[in-house]
Amino acid sequence: MYSFANDYSEGACPKVLKALIETNDVQEAGYGLDDFSLETSNIIKNILENRNVDVHFITGGTPCNILAISLLKSYEAVIAAETGHINVHETGAIEATGHKILTVKGRYGKLNSNDIIRVVHQHGDEHMVKPKMVFISNATEFGTIYTKEELKDLYKTCKELNLYLYLDGARISNALVATGNDMTLKDICEYTDMFYIGGTKNGALIGEAMVIKNDELKPEFRYTMKQHGAMLAKGRLISVQFKALLENELYLENARNANIMAQALKYIFKQHGIPMYIDSQTNQIFPVISNKLLEKIKTKYLVTEWGKYDDERTIVRFACSWATKKEDLEEFFDDLVHFTEK
Amino acid sequence: MYSFANDYSEGACPKVLKALIETNDVQEAGYGLDDFSLETSNIIKNILENRNVDVHFITGGTPCNILAISLLKSYEAVIAAETGHINVHETGAIEATGHKILTVKGRYGKLNSNDIIRVVHQHGDEHMVKPKMVFISNATEFGTIYTKEELKDLYKTCKELNLYLYLDGARISNALVATGNDMTLKDICEYTDMFYIGGTKNGALIGEAMVIKNDELKPEFRYTMKQHGAMLAKGRLISVQFKALLENELYLENARNANIMAQALKYIFKQHGIPMYIDSQTNQIFPVISNKLLEKIKTKYLVTEWGKYDDERTIVRFACSWATKKEDLEEFFDDLVHFTEK
Amino acid sequence: MYSFANDYSEGACPKVLKALIETNDVQEAGYGLDDFSLETSNIIKNILENRNVDVHFITGGTPCNILAISLLKSYEAVIAAETGHINVHETGAIEATGHKILTVKGRYGKLNSNDIIRVVHQHGDEHMVKPKMVFISNATEFGTIYTKEELKDLYKTCKELNLYLYLDGARISNALVATGNDMTLKDICEYTDMFYIGGTKNGALIGEAMVIKNDELKPEFRYTMKQHGAMLAKGRLISVQFKALLENELYLENARNANIMAQALKYIFKQHGIPMYIDSQTNQIFPVISNKLLEKIKTKYLVTEWGKYDDERTIVRFACSWATKKEDLEEFFDDLVHFTEK
Amino acid sequence: MYSFANDYSEGACPKVLKALIETNDVQEAGYGLDDFSLETSNIIKNILENRNVDVHFITGGTPCNILAISLLKSYEAVIAAETGHINVHETGAIEATGHKILTVKGRYGKLNSNDIIRVVHQHGDEHMVKPKMVFISNATEFGTIYTKEELKDLYKTCKELNLYLYLDGARISNALVATGNDMTLKDICEYTDMFYIGGTKNGALIGEAMVIKNDELKPEFRYTMKQHGAMLAKGRLISVQFKALLENELYLENARNANIMAQALKYIFKQHGIPMYIDSQTNQIFPVISNKLLEKIKTKYLVTEWGKYDDERTIVRFACSWATKKEDLEEFFDDLVHFTEK
Repeated sequence: MYSFANDYSEGACPKVLKALIETNDVQEAGYGLDDFSLETSNIIKNILENRNVDVHFITGGTPCNILAISLLKSYEAVIAAETGHINVHETGAIEATGHKILTVKGRYGKLNSNDIIRVVHQHGDEHMVKPKMVFISNATEFGTIYTKEELKDLYKTCKELNLYLYLDGARISNALVATGNDMTLKDICEYTDMFYIGGTKNGALIGEAMVIKNDELKPEFRYTMKQHGAMLAKGRLISVQFKALLENELYLENARNANIMAQALKYIFKQHGIPMYIDSQTNQIFPVISNKLLEKIKTKYLVTEWGKYDDERTIVRFACSWATKKEDLEEFFDDLVHFTEK
Repeated sequence: MYSFANDYSEGACPKVLKALIETNDVQEAGYGLDDFSLETSNIIKNILENRNVDVHFITGGTPCNILAISLLKSYEAVIAAETGHINVHETGAIEATGHKILTVKGRYGKLNSNDIIRVVHQHGDEHMVKPKMVFISNATEFGTIYTKEELKDLYKTCKELNLYLYLDGARISNALVATGNDMTLKDICEYTDMFYIGGTKNGALIGEAMVIKNDELKPEFRYTMKQHGAMLAKGRLISVQFKALLENELYLENARNANIMAQALKYIFKQHGIPMYIDSQTNQIFPVISNKLLEKIKTKYLVTEWGKYDDERTIVRFACSWATKKEDLEEFFDDLVHFTEK
Repeated sequence: MYSFANDYSEGACPKVLKALIETNDVQEAGYGLDDFSLETSNIIKNILENRNVDVHFITGGTPCNILAISLLKSYEAVIAAETGHINVHETGAIEATGHKILTVKGRYGKLNSNDIIRVVHQHGDEHMVKPKMVFISNATEFGTIYTKEELKDLYKTCKELNLYLYLDGARISNALVATGNDMTLKDICEYTDMFYIGGTKNGALIGEAMVIKNDELKPEFRYTMKQHGAMLAKGRLISVQFKALLENELYLENARNANIMAQALKYIFKQHGIPMYIDSQTNQIFPVISNKLLEKIKTKYLVTEWGKYDDERTIVRFACSWATKKEDLEEFFDDLVHFTEK
Repeated sequence: MYSFANDYSEGACPKVLKALIETNDVQEAGYGLDDFSLETSNIIKNILENRNVDVHFITGGTPCNILAISLLKSYEAVIAAETGHINVHETGAIEATGHKILTVKGRYGKLNSNDIIRVVHQHGDEHMVKPKMVFISNATEFGTIYTKEELKDLYKTCKELNLYLYLDGARISNALVATGNDMTLKDICEYTDMFYIGGTKNGALIGEAMVIKNDELKPEFRYTMKQHGAMLAKGRLISVQFKALLENELYLENARNANIMAQALKYIFKQHGIPMYIDSQTNQIFPVISNKLLEKIKTKYLVTEWGKYDDERTIVRFACSWATKKEDLEEFFDDLVHFTEK
């Protein structure tokens, strides 16, 4: 069985693994106070061209979202798309910290200023929660991306309405190398208050790098990390990997492979007349496959069934990663030809 | 200024006040262990024809909802209508106890079995919360009511899906005496796991009577009450009032006056060609009023603006209560004639 | 049976009840926005000689403590005496809002600056909570009181250490009229950041008046109230009572009766050679009574057993209130003579 | 600088690292549903000779403690030693889940049945939290260990009082190979309801293995994991390491090295007349060192200052690990000779 089910099926990408091996015997301070963390924070600040941001290395995406939103006061709420990861796939982790998620419909996982303005206007007194943060993801849960103009506009609206803009960057590298992207990490930092650079889904074994730009959100963040169990004794585990990912833009290289492979897969499906549910630009694609064909595919491949399209067809998610090889696609192509023969 | 803004503008209804005065000097045990609480619990059990329910007297509707939902495990969620009080008007009180509210659109504040089945089917694994309770209100936030058949069906579905059915009865008495109602308190007890009988909006100064039927929800409820600050030192304050409300069905009498007055008000609006946003059967009505007329009404009356209907008109809530008098309506009628004259 | 078990056995004191009756029919805005709340807040500001405080009327003492402490950030902690109400008798209500209580031994319920300094010095990094508030009560749970010098010193220490000083005033009036007291309400306001004036245990049916002096603690307090279910629909219920309590210093008069009766009771015990566990100055006294005598007392009186003194004797709490009459003590005196006869 | 500051200064022990390298390219299911997790769970069940336990791989010790205690109902509390990790060094993580920690003094980090019985007897009604779990650690935070008889007795008491016994096993392997230990992992499983086997401090990069024996604590544990951000996308990261640790009892071998080195270090100190604060049997020792000598040591070694002993001396923690070598001790011995020369 070969897995297209997600982008975290393998261990670490080779250079990340190599960095772990090479640094393994060095003695380092615990809890994120190691030299690698310091050094890697500096690399990130350089990339962002902003020395004033705070950088923290966190165990995963859900912990990042928990930490960011738990900075709000108890009656402050976060606005998110109905399809946002925090609203659907985090087992109520945000509500478990006491905060309400105010959902808006969105368009293929994306929000715009009107969505936000409407929610804020609906919440006017102390009988309702007070919207205070906007949660977006880039790439979104549907593989779509924001343009610079869109992000800039969201940020402007947030500042006018006194809201924080927080960006979930689990697949930020995939967004940055996607067709149609016109942003850099520096731009994302400029037009958000807080965001994270995803490692787990881009070649690391574990870990994300949280970037806090807004001064109001910085104080005592390490208390919040520790309290939520998101601070590792061997914090080096994450910083060493990020150092490797950032060197020579490996994070972009990994993401580029994932995107190219996914787009090639999309082309393969289109050649077979199989349509896409959404025209994703990144490393996840969503073909609409007949149930009959899907059964055949599943004899040899692991995929993620995203939802029912109609009685005959299913929306399926195929994900590629740094580890997906041209040969894997060629074999899938051959199999698809075979599966679709009468 | 006369207020139609809500059904809690006055103090207590006369018989309730009288009961408070008459019992004021009696020494009683604190924290709901007074004789009045015991006695009134028994009266409620008799009305419900069920000796096995637990009865607790609580400070208000939001505390009732907090307590009920906080009985769930942290990853268990409550299903409610988008318009449900817990989702809109309780400042995130439910989320503050750690629980997610899964919303469905509903119809004028009401849920049906399909709504529930769909939500349950969408939540299948540990990456999502686990639906465990259904929240409904009767009368709803729109003044509509459930029929016995509808409630029975919801309860059946809940039992099949292993969910608790909890009913917010802030205006339960208004539902019980509404045109179209075919239920008694006993029926409501039979077809729910837990519900409360509202006092505050039906002539009491403060207080609601929580009824717990399902054995799983009973243990140590007083711990939960105390922890959430919903247990009064002078618990008698609530039980004395409820005893008076239950005597000679005063609770139904109060609600009947409120409903009749509201329906008469509806008739007055209709005579002036003013349509209703929703055809409510209870003590709240929702006329759609031109902004020009509304301004005139507001010179003499307090009302609640429910939302914008279109650029020219506003949805307004008028509420009547045990205290609304025929004379109040007559005066309003005269004023309306005057306001609508050219 | 006559009850000395607590100071909340009766309903409201006569003038408070009268105020409720007289204002019952007035229509008022809900949720604490009524004219009585406004007016009574102003009376309190005048008494405190401070126009800049915020005043809120809250349902009870535990809710007050929940609200005050929930203003802290999640990793901030409150310092309290081991015997503090929040640590012992609120069913983990503070922890339920996510906050740790750091306890110190204290002396008969009282804290001093050294206690606080020591705790702060022990908590130096992000692996520990960050002390941010100090909780004291006056009168304390043991009936003892703070002097002006003691409170001033605590407040000074708190300001030096960047801590909030919060005072639980459930029995603040009893403290203000106690022998040995040298403070006024104005002094207490001057030397705390936030405190509440207790009503429930001093002649009201329900309710406490929260006073917030520190600007950092003021914003959006009503959101916090609503979220925790501590805001009444008929908010007038509390403000009307407080207005009556403040008029002609009824709150001090009520407390004075309670204290005098308790001190007289203490004298009665001493005449019988029964020692006090603590030399309380307020309305609660703690005689150490032989188990044999206690059994006899309990045939006619309700009291609170505070704890075992030794195998033969029990520490008992007797509380007096605004309602305790000279005749009640005379009868108890006669009974005690009788009980102690061979 | 050489670090004796803790037992997590290096990366992974060689065999664990090797296992990560060898399995890196295998595609595996995410979120702990990988084959390694299944296989390693089975190995643990075999060691425990109990097929009915549930095994989960968790990111760290604080997350383990959060998860275990969050299984309680909101008003249920955990009993722990004042010095317990959850009470001191987890930034209020337990309280952040809403639960109170009831502390007892303990003896060098250890609890006994009397401690527990006393706390339970002090908590009798709904105005107080309800004790429901006992938290112990083995080895304790002071490096001391429980005997089989002691654990058995605690467990018996817990069962009699209807409490869960939970054991924090961050350094469980160090306990199992300590002088004076008479327990096996199987014994620990037999006499607890839930415990975890520590990996992070015993040669893994990250991870602990939670074992749940009591059926009441098993249901839907993965929901709790996910909600608290303690479930890794690449769950294999932990299970692969544990598989290596369990093979040929590497976990005991690592711990044995750590203990032996620490005991040798103790011997070195004793030779220099430097006393121990506590007579720890495991891999952490606590010499009482003159401030003058400490300054010299700190020029070449990282250590943890545990607390002030008196004006002249400091309690210092030295920790050894799987990575500590005989040569490191020899060098330290030479340095100590040199430092203590006049």
